[in-house]
Amino acid sequence: MKKGDRTRERIIRQAAPLFNQRGYEGSSMQEIMAATKLEKGGIYRHFPSKQQLAAEAFDYAWDEARNARRHDLDRDENSVDKLKHFIANFVERRGSVPGGCPLLNTATDSDDGNIVLRTRARKALQDWQSFLGSIIANGIRKGEIRTDVAKAKLANVIIASLEGAIMIGRLEQSVEPLRHAQSHLDNYLESKVRMKN
Amino acid sequence: MKKGDRTRERIIRQAAPLFNQRGYEGSSMQEIMAATKLEKGGIYRHFPSKQQLAAEAFDYAWDEARNARRHDLDRDENSVDKLKHFIANFVERRGSVPGGCPLLNTATDSDDGNIVLRTRARKALQDWQSFLGSIIANGIRKGEIRTDVAKAKLANVIIASLEGAIMIGRLEQSVEPLRHAQSHLDNYLESKVRMKN
Repeated sequence: MKKGDRTRERIIRQAAPLFNQRGYEGSSMQEIMAATKLEKGGIYRHFPSKQQLAAEAFDYAWDEARNARRHDLDRDENSVDKLKHFIANFVERRGSVPGGCPLLNTATDSDDGNIVLRTRARKALQDWQSFLGSIIANGIRKGEIRTDVAKAKLANVIIASLEGAIMIGRLEQSVEPLRHAQSHLDNYLESKVRMKN
Repeated sequence: MKKGDRTRERIIRQAAPLFNQRGYEGSSMQEIMAATKLEKGGIYRHFPSKQQLAAEAFDYAWDEARNARRHDLDRDENSVDKLKHFIANFVERRGSVPGGCPLLNTATDSDDGNIVLRTRARKALQDWQSFLGSIIANGIRKGEIRTDVAKAKLANVIIASLEGAIMIGRLEQSVEPLRHAQSHLDNYLESKVRMKN
C-alpha cells in the first residue's frame, strides 16, 4: 500500500469514532483535525469534502460492526442456530468503533437531510436484510425453517428488536434491554420459526 | 396566559421540528432565528441557552408523540387489548412534530454527550416503560395476562420493536417495517401473553 493510501485509511479510522459518537453536524473540521493530527489541507488532499469523509467513515464503522456480528457464523450448520448465533454476537460483540451502532446513528442522523449518508445507511440496511433473508431462505429450502415464515418480515423483526434494544440500552447504560431482545427472539425462533420434526 | 409566556411557547413549538429533524448540533442559532422569526436576543430573553430551548422542544415533541400513541386507550377494558391498541396507535398516528420519533432521535443524538438532552430522553423512556409496565401489572392482577410474563422485559420488547421499526421505515420511506412489528407483537401478545380461559 502506498503512503498516500495509508494516510487516507488512517484518516478514516481516526475520524470514524468522532462521526459515530457526535454525528455529522456535531463533528467539526476542528475536531477532525485534532483526531487525525492533520491540517485542514492534509485532510482535503485525500477527501473532496467532509461529507465524503463521513461516508467512508460510516462504511468503515459499519464494516467493523458487521464483522463482529457475523463472527464465526460458518460453524453453524442449521439456519435457526445461525440466526440465534447472529443475535448472540450482536449482544456480546461490538465493532471497534465506539458510539453504538453506526447504522442506527447514521440513519437517525441523516433521515431528514444528508442524502449521501442516507444512501450509505440504506445500503447497509439492505445488505443486513439480505444477509438474514438468505439464511432464512436457505433454512426454508433445507426444511429447517417453517414454510409459512415470511423472509422479509422475520429479517425486519430481528433487526428492529436489536436496534431498538441498543437505543434503550445506551440510554440506560445497560446490556439488559439487549438480553431482553435476545431472549424474546430466541423463544420466537424456537416456537414459531424452527421446523418441528 | 401572559404575552411573554405565549411567545415562549411559540418559540418551543417552532423550534421543535428543527431540533427533531436536524438534531441538536445540526440546528444552528441562524436556523432557529429563521424558524421563529426572532432575533437572537429575542430568543435568549426566554431561554438561558440553546440547550435549554432544545430540552423544552424535546419535551414538547415527546408530549405530542405520547398523546398520539395513547389516543383513546381508555376505551379498552382488557389489558392485552390496550397494549394492542397502543401498538396500533404507534403505527397509525404521528405526533404533530415532523422528523420521526423524538425519543429515538434525541437518544441517538445525545447518548455520547449532551447530558441535559440525555436526561430528558431517559426520563421520557422511563415514563414510557412505566406506562406499559402498569398496563401489564394491571393485566396480571386482573387475570388477563399470564403470571409468567416479565413486566420490564415485555415493555422493552414492545418499545424496542417499534423504535427499531421506525428506524428501518424512515430509511426505506415505508410503513411496512412498522406493520411487520405490529403483526409480530400482536401474535406474540395473543399466543404468549394473554391468559387463556
